[in-house]
Amino acid sequence: METVVIKQLYRETEKYAGQIVSISGWIRTVRASNAFGFIELNDGSFFKNVQIVFESELDNYKDVSKLPISSSITIEGIVELTPESKQPFEIKAKKIIIEGLSHSDFPLQKKRHSYEYLRTIAHLRPRSNTFAAVFRVRSIAAFAIHKFFQERGFVYVHTPIITGSDCEGAGEMFRLTTLDLNNVPKTEDGKIDTSKDFFGKETNLTVSGQLNVETFALAFRNVYTFGPTFRAENSNTTKHAAEFWMIEPEMAFADLQDDMEVAEEMVKYIINYVMENAPEEMEFFNKFIDNTLFDRLNNVISSDFGRVTYTEAVEILEKCGEKFDYPVSWGVDLQTEHERYLTEKHFKKPVFVTNYPKDIKAFYMKLNDDGKTVAATDLLVPGVGEIIGGSQREERLSVLEARMEELGLNKEDYWWYLELRKYGETVHSGFGLGFERILMYLTGMANIRDVIPFPRTPGTAEF
Amino acid sequence: METVVIKQLYRETEKYAGQIVSISGWIRTVRASNAFGFIELNDGSFFKNVQIVFESELDNYKDVSKLPISSSITIEGIVELTPESKQPFEIKAKKIIIEGLSHSDFPLQKKRHSYEYLRTIAHLRPRSNTFAAVFRVRSIAAFAIHKFFQERGFVYVHTPIITGSDCEGAGEMFRLTTLDLNNVPKTEDGKIDTSKDFFGKETNLTVSGQLNVETFALAFRNVYTFGPTFRAENSNTTKHAAEFWMIEPEMAFADLQDDMEVAEEMVKYIINYVMENAPEEMEFFNKFIDNTLFDRLNNVISSDFGRVTYTEAVEILEKCGEKFDYPVSWGVDLQTEHERYLTEKHFKKPVFVTNYPKDIKAFYMKLNDDGKTVAATDLLVPGVGEIIGGSQREERLSVLEARMEELGLNKEDYWWYLELRKYGETVHSGFGLGFERILMYLTGMANIRDVIPFPRTPGTAEF
Repeated sequence: METVVIKQLYRETEKYAGQIVSISGWIRTVRASNAFGFIELNDGSFFKNVQIVFESELDNYKDVSKLPISSSITIEGIVELTPESKQPFEIKAKKIIIEGLSHSDFPLQKKRHSYEYLRTIAHLRPRSNTFAAVFRVRSIAAFAIHKFFQERGFVYVHTPIITGSDCEGAGEMFRLTTLDLNNVPKTEDGKIDTSKDFFGKETNLTVSGQLNVETFALAFRNVYTFGPTFRAENSNTTKHAAEFWMIEPEMAFADLQDDMEVAEEMVKYIINYVMENAPEEMEFFNKFIDNTLFDRLNNVISSDFGRVTYTEAVEILEKCGEKFDYPVSWGVDLQTEHERYLTEKHFKKPVFVTNYPKDIKAFYMKLNDDGKTVAATDLLVPGVGEIIGGSQREERLSVLEARMEELGLNKEDYWWYLELRKYGETVHSGFGLGFERILMYLTGMANIRDVIPFPRTPGTAEF
Repeated sequence: METVVIKQLYRETEKYAGQIVSISGWIRTVRASNAFGFIELNDGSFFKNVQIVFESELDNYKDVSKLPISSSITIEGIVELTPESKQPFEIKAKKIIIEGLSHSDFPLQKKRHSYEYLRTIAHLRPRSNTFAAVFRVRSIAAFAIHKFFQERGFVYVHTPIITGSDCEGAGEMFRLTTLDLNNVPKTEDGKIDTSKDFFGKETNLTVSGQLNVETFALAFRNVYTFGPTFRAENSNTTKHAAEFWMIEPEMAFADLQDDMEVAEEMVKYIINYVMENAPEEMEFFNKFIDNTLFDRLNNVISSDFGRVTYTEAVEILEKCGEKFDYPVSWGVDLQTEHERYLTEKHFKKPVFVTNYPKDIKAFYMKLNDDGKTVAATDLLVPGVGEIIGGSQREERLSVLEARMEELGLNKEDYWWYLELRKYGETVHSGFGLGFERILMYLTGMANIRDVIPFPRTPGTAEF
């Protein structure tokens, strides 16, 4: 007797038809009369349940009939095809072993719960349809990203989580310490004696691996990071979390055009891979979470992404006649309303906006010949706005140093980053993709807290 | 003219023979006479260099002849087969564009450097042969792990890095905070007012994702983590880092035997995948780093791993006549010297030691019927000792609670972990693999600092 999982039965139904199998899982529902009953069983291997039919001949028929939701059981039974039914097959139980009896107060009963409530039972919510779908898609999308880059020869780099430097010269950070906060050691002049801390200096949680990974791009040519990043920003929105995962590819001998080509190819690859490898979950999202989902994703897959400069984009926005909450003019950062107008109403497809004013972008972006814009790009997609931000990097040492001085950055803190420009500098480019942002895009889930297994937000670090 | 990378030329040499190609990279060496010269070029796509031949007809022949090591260049030239030479082909340059002139003080000159020194230039060391090989293998091994689990239907789970709980009730942790350390807010009774901290309570960096991922195993059946973990232990050894990556699979409806089978299959899969996908790098390690490497790895791949109980293992050690620094008797934890004796001299292959005394293992491990051992297993491998630690988990609520009381753990802190035993408990098991530990095993590198891009150890958080 073969031990199987539900996915095998759905994917190779013909092979198992008429076979006796052993299968274990958790009960989603039980209905029983005096003569026979039905169990909807899920084992986590597949989005759909399998239907178990059991009859009163079973020794433990009464016990099984009364099993609470989420009890775990093992069934030995025959796989029978049911071509006239909704489901293609069912299992006729010969034996049912009760593994773990669930308590009757199991919080996920067969009724709708609010997402807010489900976050308070984050240890149980993956047993619901919605979160089973979300977290399987999260896993599959993560693998798609690795596969995409590995197939193209990119080297995966684990950049450090603990950092002694603030990458972008901005961003609020979490400090980490092993000092006794009840009795913080001080130096003679009354400052915190960081020499007594674990690393002998102040350290924080990283906000980006980019500067670190650039050093590897100048050795391996094509590299990427995929790891957690942190923001200690006190912003309670549906889009911000204190801990999230980011993908940061970086390519030597690649300019902004190459950068955009890889970004476009990657986004399409992820969508295609998830559609192919999680078809049941994606159907569910399209049906129950966001019924514009397939239209939106198909539009992305089948479009050649647009390209427009920031300057042109501002002209479009100024002339379009649309009322915006935030007025737009050359020099201001684009707001989500502007981004969505461009991608949804003007271009009607994803669009890269390029060459932003230098004053609204980071110090490491390559200064264009006009002296006022940088070779940056943001990818805007319908339904969301910005999903990727990237740039060509400033590889000219003197220009980079001048820009850092302008911004008051301390060059000594970046000695190793600057040295890259001394020892075989090359044109190079990269971008960052917030993993949760693309997951929200892929699933239609509207709150970042609902695509992270155990979300961390201001005031919340449960589980 | 096609733009290519070196890997393409080595893997499809015939296809490119006689073709004009464009190729970019960094100079490893230049030798030139008055008439012609040779460049060893590496572009990071492949372990080996390509040889460029250039002649005095080039406009910039003199400049090229004097290029410092690590300068970046782009060559246009013909791929010529050289069947009589060491290398199978070379490129005859028609044009050489100097992209980035390196300074002559480039620290990685053609001489041997100590690993200690190379750690001080962690931003440049991936340009050396050793670290190019290490970090490509790191990337390939990471992908092998994802591929192994994804192919088997395991769901990848990002467990939280920031945690409000100390998973194993042990382990020194990094505290994180946004409080002003110069002026830590206190409550009326003089304690730290953690309600004013970012998460409204004390939080730390995770030491393990296991307890969190168990909640997902009881929904998806088979799951795994792969992420960074932290120890604030002040131990300056070649095996310990403050930040390292760990893989933690967890399986429902799986006992200790199933656990060991997956662990064995995984270790073999990783070795096979890396041998197949990084043959040049592995040759290098076997030749220059550890010439027992291939023997060791082949022994692992071709062995059926041994199985022995802790009690039997202690008997073997007591009777073997070997002098150990630490005496061995039932109840003590095995030291590396004991582990290595077992795997290297007694079994001469990898061996799982099972059923350790409960007092030397964690609270969540399943108590065996003898009441004094737990269903734990450590995998010992020749050359290293322990490489994996795992166990069946205690799924019986009353036994688990009793054990927690014995150890003085606060049950309220683990309410969600305990609830798993209330709502459809199942036999379940898992293990942990330190990613750096298997990398050291795969490469022969002896210090954990040399398999991490930017290592974090006591007193060191550079870059």
